[in-house]
Amino acid sequence: MKTKPAVTYGGGSIKQSGLYGRVAASLESAGIEVTELSGVKPNPRLSLVREGIGICREKNIELILAVGGGSVIDSAKAIAVGALYSGDVWDFYSGKAVPVEALPVATVLTIPAAGSESSSGSVITNEDGMLKRACGTELMFPVFSICNPELAFTLPASQIANGTADIYAHMHERYFTNEKNVDLTDRLIEAGMRNILKHSPGLLSAGDDYDAWAEVMWTGTIAHNNLLDTGRVGDWASHDIEHELSGMFDIAHGAGLAIIIPAWMKYVMDHDVEKFAQLAERVFFVERDYRNPEITALEGIFRLEQHFRRMGMAVRLSEVNIKRDSFEAMADKATLGDSLTLGNFVKLDKKAIVDIFRLAE
Amino acid sequence: MKTKPAVTYGGGSIKQSGLYGRVAASLESAGIEVTELSGVKPNPRLSLVREGIGICREKNIELILAVGGGSVIDSAKAIAVGALYSGDVWDFYSGKAVPVEALPVATVLTIPAAGSESSSGSVITNEDGMLKRACGTELMFPVFSICNPELAFTLPASQIANGTADIYAHMHERYFTNEKNVDLTDRLIEAGMRNILKHSPGLLSAGDDYDAWAEVMWTGTIAHNNLLDTGRVGDWASHDIEHELSGMFDIAHGAGLAIIIPAWMKYVMDHDVEKFAQLAERVFFVERDYRNPEITALEGIFRLEQHFRRMGMAVRLSEVNIKRDSFEAMADKATLGDSLTLGNFVKLDKKAIVDIFRLAE
Repeated sequence: MKTKPAVTYGGGSIKQSGLYGRVAASLESAGIEVTELSGVKPNPRLSLVREGIGICREKNIELILAVGGGSVIDSAKAIAVGALYSGDVWDFYSGKAVPVEALPVATVLTIPAAGSESSSGSVITNEDGMLKRACGTELMFPVFSICNPELAFTLPASQIANGTADIYAHMHERYFTNEKNVDLTDRLIEAGMRNILKHSPGLLSAGDDYDAWAEVMWTGTIAHNNLLDTGRVGDWASHDIEHELSGMFDIAHGAGLAIIIPAWMKYVMDHDVEKFAQLAERVFFVERDYRNPEITALEGIFRLEQHFRRMGMAVRLSEVNIKRDSFEAMADKATLGDSLTLGNFVKLDKKAIVDIFRLAE
Repeated sequence: MKTKPAVTYGGGSIKQSGLYGRVAASLESAGIEVTELSGVKPNPRLSLVREGIGICREKNIELILAVGGGSVIDSAKAIAVGALYSGDVWDFYSGKAVPVEALPVATVLTIPAAGSESSSGSVITNEDGMLKRACGTELMFPVFSICNPELAFTLPASQIANGTADIYAHMHERYFTNEKNVDLTDRLIEAGMRNILKHSPGLLSAGDDYDAWAEVMWTGTIAHNNLLDTGRVGDWASHDIEHELSGMFDIAHGAGLAIIIPAWMKYVMDHDVEKFAQLAERVFFVERDYRNPEITALEGIFRLEQHFRRMGMAVRLSEVNIKRDSFEAMADKATLGDSLTLGNFVKLDKKAIVDIFRLAE
């Protein structure tokens, strides 16, 4: 039996690099008819997802092969659940409905970042109101993912920085939990964090370092495949807050995280200063101040900012021209008019989110 | 459809503790007829496996539920591949044949140690010659495993020591590889090693510490479910050498490992002294001697021995009454008369194995 796949991808880069040709030739040599869906953009749009759903139905597509980064894979996942649903796919992202079936999704990963190649989630932006929302279901786990470090050799510096920041963030969100006795998960997360901090900076000057990309690519996969959720509930407020940034201003997700995470850390630090000191000591090799864990914790946050700066990233909103007059509106949207809180480690209302934006100013 | 299971277990401890009754009642309340196979011993025997295979065929068993530790689970796995094979199950352990089908195996884990609840392998002892051999196949991965820390509360000190040594050993064997660029795997292994070293000793005085058992149980599962093999080939010579010890002298597997591993480390250390220094620094917090990595490495080995001693274990063959006059015979058996080598990090012939026994004397 031959599966009838649709191949989704973004812009022209995989055509220029020859990757699309290799994938298509491989499928065609197996006698498989390929349907193409191109044009996925960063912060992937609902309109393209709907277009893909239409194509799947019309052509009786049986598998979606995503060739690209997180946006391409997230679009493929949205199409996969939407194609078998009689209603509108946005229902799954607005929380109105839960997927019960999906087409299988497979991936050829070109950008280590979102971890979507191993995750059960997808994030889509609805242009109607620029709402960026997530949907998670085990139905979205890719059936296979080809993770070849060589495919990342041509990434520009900004994508290296944004991608590795996103990978760090996936571990960071899981690290900050109120569960006190899941030591092994802490240690596994710290291992992944150390690894991404060690192997990212060198890629800016040596983008064809196979071994370093292999480290980053595999860390990206481990970071988001749910292993590091074992025995705990992560926080995820920084991701939710960032979604408003990149939803409204269309900056890259990783770039937004590098700004929001340090500010979030400063805002919530007092809730469990020892956890921040643990991060500082174990991941950033800060020498502990035995009388003042706050000093240890703050030094860790400072070193994380220094890492992002070293990667060429902004760590303040003012550096990316996001002004104070938008804080209120973003916080309002993030909390649906102060009607819900974000985060699990510390629950943040609208005012708290505005305060975090001010710390990030 | 109701699956027809056989429940395998060891001695009377799960009957005394009430666990067997709980499992049986649960199955019976679901209308499932249970077939019992008891009497699994440590270093599980081929004869009992053959008996189990006969029962499975006679009763058309459809699933094997192993309630116990590694020996019970390993026996269940052997029965599972043997029941659907027309030849003798030992063929799979002697290397004469490879399993192509198996009954599903599920487990209720009572002893965190062997990692068999999440592994693709099984080790069985053939009483005819006391040959202890392993078989590995994805067909042996349990379909589910119930890992409840409370079931370990009643374990005696010796089983705590042997089990946690076995868990350490599974990570240790994977740590020592000639692959140089799989940093994340090194770090994940170090995370697991640190965790087992931290949480094991306290169990000797507080055997009902739920959180500590949860750490040990989960580390035992991660240690052996193949995650930590990513991108590398582990060594496994210490396991193979130990199998001769516990095969000939019927000492516990973990007890044998605590003796063999430090001796193996001393013997092979010069092959890659920096890797031993890395272990010493990252896992045993040895302060690095920048001029003499050997001193750093040796201090790490010393601290591992100290850990085993703290767990109440012997670390020399003389302490368990294994005498020099048996070294030659064990090395001969391990290498099938010096016709094969053990290990991948360093390949060991018969003479090398005798030298390791002398270092362990």
